[in-house]
Amino acid sequence: MNNEKYTVYGMALSGNCHKVKTILDLSKASYSWIDTDTRVQATRTPEYRAKNPNGEVPLLELPDGRFLPESNAILFYLSQDTPYWPANDDAYAQAQVMRWMFFEQYSHEPYIAVNRARLAIFKTERPDDAAVRSRHEKGRKTLGVMNEHLRDNDFFATKNISIADIALFAYTHVAHEGGFDLNEFSEVQAWLERLLDHGFSKMPPI
Amino acid sequence: MNNEKYTVYGMALSGNCHKVKTILDLSKASYSWIDTDTRVQATRTPEYRAKNPNGEVPLLELPDGRFLPESNAILFYLSQDTPYWPANDDAYAQAQVMRWMFFEQYSHEPYIAVNRARLAIFKTERPDDAAVRSRHEKGRKTLGVMNEHLRDNDFFATKNISIADIALFAYTHVAHEGGFDLNEFSEVQAWLERLLDHGFSKMPPI
Repeated sequence: MNNEKYTVYGMALSGNCHKVKTILDLSKASYSWIDTDTRVQATRTPEYRAKNPNGEVPLLELPDGRFLPESNAILFYLSQDTPYWPANDDAYAQAQVMRWMFFEQYSHEPYIAVNRARLAIFKTERPDDAAVRSRHEKGRKTLGVMNEHLRDNDFFATKNISIADIALFAYTHVAHEGGFDLNEFSEVQAWLERLLDHGFSKMPPI
Repeated sequence: MNNEKYTVYGMALSGNCHKVKTILDLSKASYSWIDTDTRVQATRTPEYRAKNPNGEVPLLELPDGRFLPESNAILFYLSQDTPYWPANDDAYAQAQVMRWMFFEQYSHEPYIAVNRARLAIFKTERPDDAAVRSRHEKGRKTLGVMNEHLRDNDFFATKNISIADIALFAYTHVAHEGGFDLNEFSEVQAWLERLLDHGFSKMPPI
């Protein structure tokens, strides 16, 4: 990573945006953060849509003005030449990082992050709603898969911290805000502590 | 890609599994396919869970016996040293491939693939159900984002066909089975034709 300045369009309470902040901070990269609050439709303006047609945060602007959306694609880009992405001679290790990042977006975020958003940020649903309970059940299954994996592994994809850990940390460390009890998942708790010891930071309170 | 033999655990009607078949066929790789039908709970057995703790298809077994789950992580692994993954000196192009693969898993599959599964494969929901209509609306938005992108681009991530196109082809070419009308999205239709001309194959009928 060079020392040119990146721009991040992000929302501080979004775990997907927190991933980008985490890799930039861990890498001591230079960046500015443009607060882009989806609660006031800041991603729905024509100006924002011209930068990201899918209308979501986070969005990375490179020093040369090119844009890159999708939190885990941004992690991939920013982790090149850092310890958080495996070397190019180990495609299997790289694929394991990818495996856990796709797991995060498909099996974790839609349940754990969405319940947090609906219950604690947007407050559009309640704990007893059928949709919330269905997501709770699926999210607990996901946390169980993570907990089992961590019985034999310090980190998700390789022996070292990778962007897979950065991706999974984002919504796991605030899972309680979505009604999940991490006391059930002691290996997950220990892994979170290892990441905090390494220098990861938590999101601000809601 | 070498000529050693891969094993794929997959279900022929699953678009996620079709992605793996597509990259292997395009690369003329040698592989065997073990039919693993989620309709008869083939992914819920202890034997299968030992191979993939998340209990999903597809799953790739490497010639050396190691396993790799998650369709788009498998695409990443199998595309190394093929024309379907950008060169290592172009991290931005690689990140654009990632960007569209994460878009596929987060903004496409949960709406377009899930409506096809519920309406046509498992037949557990009906077209007028609120959940189906909600997914239909979100899936049309996704197809609209794709259509706009294709007005100025032949393919998704780069000037050439990449694994992003393989990922998005999988459920787009059967979107009609989930109640989507691709006649609304002429650029998407033209892109599908380009991929079929290149040698992509369709999934079997349900």
